[in-house]
Amino acid sequence: MFKEMLENVRAKAPLIHNITNYVTVNDCANILLACGGSPIMADDIGEAEEITSVCGGLNINIGTLNGRTIPAMFAAGKKANALSHPVLLDPVGAGASGLRTETALKLLEEVRFAVIRGNVSEIKTLAKGSGTTKGVDADALDAVDENTLGSAVAFARAFAAKTGAVVAMTGAIDIVAGADKAFCIRNGHTMMSRITGSGCMLSAMMAAYITANPGDTLTAAAAAVSAMGLCGEKAFARLKPFDGNSTFRNYLIDEVFNLTGEALERGAKYEMR
Amino acid sequence: MFKEMLENVRAKAPLIHNITNYVTVNDCANILLACGGSPIMADDIGEAEEITSVCGGLNINIGTLNGRTIPAMFAAGKKANALSHPVLLDPVGAGASGLRTETALKLLEEVRFAVIRGNVSEIKTLAKGSGTTKGVDADALDAVDENTLGSAVAFARAFAAKTGAVVAMTGAIDIVAGADKAFCIRNGHTMMSRITGSGCMLSAMMAAYITANPGDTLTAAAAAVSAMGLCGEKAFARLKPFDGNSTFRNYLIDEVFNLTGEALERGAKYEMR
Amino acid sequence: MFKEMLENVRAKAPLIHNITNYVTVNDCANILLACGGSPIMADDIGEAEEITSVCGGLNINIGTLNGRTIPAMFAAGKKANALSHPVLLDPVGAGASGLRTETALKLLEEVRFAVIRGNVSEIKTLAKGSGTTKGVDADALDAVDENTLGSAVAFARAFAAKTGAVVAMTGAIDIVAGADKAFCIRNGHTMMSRITGSGCMLSAMMAAYITANPGDTLTAAAAAVSAMGLCGEKAFARLKPFDGNSTFRNYLIDEVFNLTGEALERGAKYEMR
Repeated sequence: MFKEMLENVRAKAPLIHNITNYVTVNDCANILLACGGSPIMADDIGEAEEITSVCGGLNINIGTLNGRTIPAMFAAGKKANALSHPVLLDPVGAGASGLRTETALKLLEEVRFAVIRGNVSEIKTLAKGSGTTKGVDADALDAVDENTLGSAVAFARAFAAKTGAVVAMTGAIDIVAGADKAFCIRNGHTMMSRITGSGCMLSAMMAAYITANPGDTLTAAAAAVSAMGLCGEKAFARLKPFDGNSTFRNYLIDEVFNLTGEALERGAKYEMR
Repeated sequence: MFKEMLENVRAKAPLIHNITNYVTVNDCANILLACGGSPIMADDIGEAEEITSVCGGLNINIGTLNGRTIPAMFAAGKKANALSHPVLLDPVGAGASGLRTETALKLLEEVRFAVIRGNVSEIKTLAKGSGTTKGVDADALDAVDENTLGSAVAFARAFAAKTGAVVAMTGAIDIVAGADKAFCIRNGHTMMSRITGSGCMLSAMMAAYITANPGDTLTAAAAAVSAMGLCGEKAFARLKPFDGNSTFRNYLIDEVFNLTGEALERGAKYEMR
Repeated sequence: MFKEMLENVRAKAPLIHNITNYVTVNDCANILLACGGSPIMADDIGEAEEITSVCGGLNINIGTLNGRTIPAMFAAGKKANALSHPVLLDPVGAGASGLRTETALKLLEEVRFAVIRGNVSEIKTLAKGSGTTKGVDADALDAVDENTLGSAVAFARAFAAKTGAVVAMTGAIDIVAGADKAFCIRNGHTMMSRITGSGCMLSAMMAAYITANPGDTLTAAAAAVSAMGLCGEKAFARLKPFDGNSTFRNYLIDEVFNLTGEALERGAKYEMR
């Protein structure tokens, strides 16, 4: 099932408009190219709608948001909605500042999102309307483990029902939830939290997956999560003595570049709830 | 001939002012250091002219252009003209939005460029005054092959004559054209289109080449194109199983770092038309 | 002594607010993660103070400063002072433009810095109130060698006394000075000047070191300088034929990731003056 999702990305090479932070933007562009998509970054209000129009999907990431780029996020999001292009929201750091929380909440009000992808703290912030995210990483109190998985799935499904979006809540166990069912995904490696941009790269790649698979956003989003986690496992396995997080970042993108549908199908670890 | 061009960069270590996009800016800085130049990035109107003044050349790249940086491009460009510093234009995404097309056209009106470097779709957009570039990559219809090479060379030479700039139009076959003659360069590898920033890095490096070789901009620009393409070939040859586009990017910059004048002279594949 | 400094970073995982340039921001985030800290980048006036409040330390780097981010530097700096969080200034390119020199000088007036870290040309510019830095690299005339070391130490100690900050002046020999004593550090490798971001990464990492070691800013800053230099030596030693500056950058971050307190203690080369 995931195999077809991946292969559709490679076959269709979706062009993705990214309004994203300047910290991880290069990695986002390279992972989009690695997975078979094509990136364009444009964040000025003077061209945001027009760039969205020539693309197939839109990825809005609020890391390093600012007074200049926020209006472009709204304009591009509405334009994408008008054109029925899928839009993904990555609420980086929602809960860490009022500006981030309020911008994310306002985007949820005014733009229809196909997927909301964040860590547990960010998603909880959006669901509750406020939060206390520690920086851009999830709060330890928010960790999802086997004991809390059931309630976390119920929470994600409820938020999906409320927003009409697929909710991709990533952490030790990843949950990708629609209103009626959820994927619980056990791919990934803790090393992914030792580089910047694991989440941003996943969001960018997921935008390509959902754009290339318009008929099944839930499965496409889950396939992207599983693919990224699997590539994290494979990248970690490639590390040699003296290698560290910088080499891991390179290997992670390399693994996405080389990942086949068969390997994804074989390596995906998930269950439905 | 290309050998001297490269060696002048290493000998003179030209300081290049870059007003460039935030997607590939780190790669541009590292490739400038790799080739023997020295980078400085500055895009605020409050310092653009002053930074240009302390540099030897200017590289204007319109990717992620915005209302804040566009005025700095004009101010720096005019200052560089006044100081007779060579200025290079990389019209990233011209044709993909009105803002990009119009900004690039207005820059061509108000600033005298030593070189215009872009893909075929971008250059065609500038020559026609409008275009339909697919994102930041060249349209497939614009591909230059052996059948269309003759007309592409004529087109590039005509645009060079019209603008007074050397026109570097890169693709499967690269054309570097003055009004009277053109280099057709057959270095390069398709893998270069699987990373972000191949074009941006070439423009940054080319700015160093033309700054270090003021007497022969055409040959210097052609040498930069050939050097980058040759390094792409050599980087691809270094790839091992499991390596992908991220490792390729690292190897590409590494090859530029290690490239000697002799190796460039030996590996350059070009003809004059 | 340096061992404890490093181990406190790993134990406390300080969250560092970075207002920094977009050229090297990704490397700064990854080196913070490599050393055991945690990065957040935020430069909008609408959230700068709030983000500073949730962090433990602040790193202000004026590379690619602009009209939008300068007010955020002042707001965050003052907030950090009010909260007694350590603040580090990296005056990138001070002396290369009036905007950079004046912004850095005004920051020194209005914000209390725990550490000022720059190359010799930048520090001299701040001490004299004007300068002629060549781009973002130190002027050759400003090089510190065995002959000039004594006067350079005296200069750095005097500037430390004047500002109340630890002064970290990096070059062939690094000087980390308080008013009363200074570390002269002989770690490092010339290859570090062939990548972009060596200085920016050091500043980001140093912010983590001083935040995790509030009782001894001078030793913490010196430990960071020695750690970065030692990792530069080790990264260079790992290079194989065909490797260049891009691979060196990756290895440098990898070495920081793998550096232990024992290895730092063993490899540190310094004397007190």
